[in-house]
Amino acid sequence: MLTAEIRVTLKEGVLDPQGTTLNRSLENIGYKGLKEVRMGKLIQLTLDLNDRAQAKELVEELCLKVLTNPVIEQYQFTIGEGK
Amino acid sequence: MLTAEIRVTLKEGVLDPQGTTLNRSLENIGYKGLKEVRMGKLIQLTLDLNDRAQAKELVEELCLKVLTNPVIEQYQFTIGEGK
Repeated sequence: MLTAEIRVTLKEGVLDPQGTTLNRSLENIGYKGLKEVRMGKLIQLTLDLNDRAQAKELVEELCLKVLTNPVIEQYQFTIGEGK
Repeated sequence: MLTAEIRVTLKEGVLDPQGTTLNRSLENIGYKGLKEVRMGKLIQLTLDLNDRAQAKELVEELCLKVLTNPVIEQYQFTIGEGK
């Protein structure tokens, strides 16, 4: 059984209001040393597949078509072995 | 300048309604081969620090006190070099 972990982040230059808000809040409660905060998504899949090539193809398609907005988001994924 | 990337995921056994909904939706639109989907958060920090030990301490504290709910969530982070 294979697993996939997908990291979805905003492309460079795309504004991140959620991250900016978090950054400001952390400053307000006294945390120093933060310059920028950006938020992304982490999607963990357990796949009913044993073939890595097939898994890669499925995850690539999911990322492109459903899980990300390619206009503003970028993604990276790794395929691993499940338990 | 250092950066930190924090992965926040639900602990094993904690229900993930968002992931379950996504899984069901993907099945409904015809994707086969998915067994489980779990959603997490990715938080990327750019730090105004140059000392790794200090950065690690700050991020550890942020994770424990602010960024995660230790009852249901777990976290992992890496410290990297920024541009």
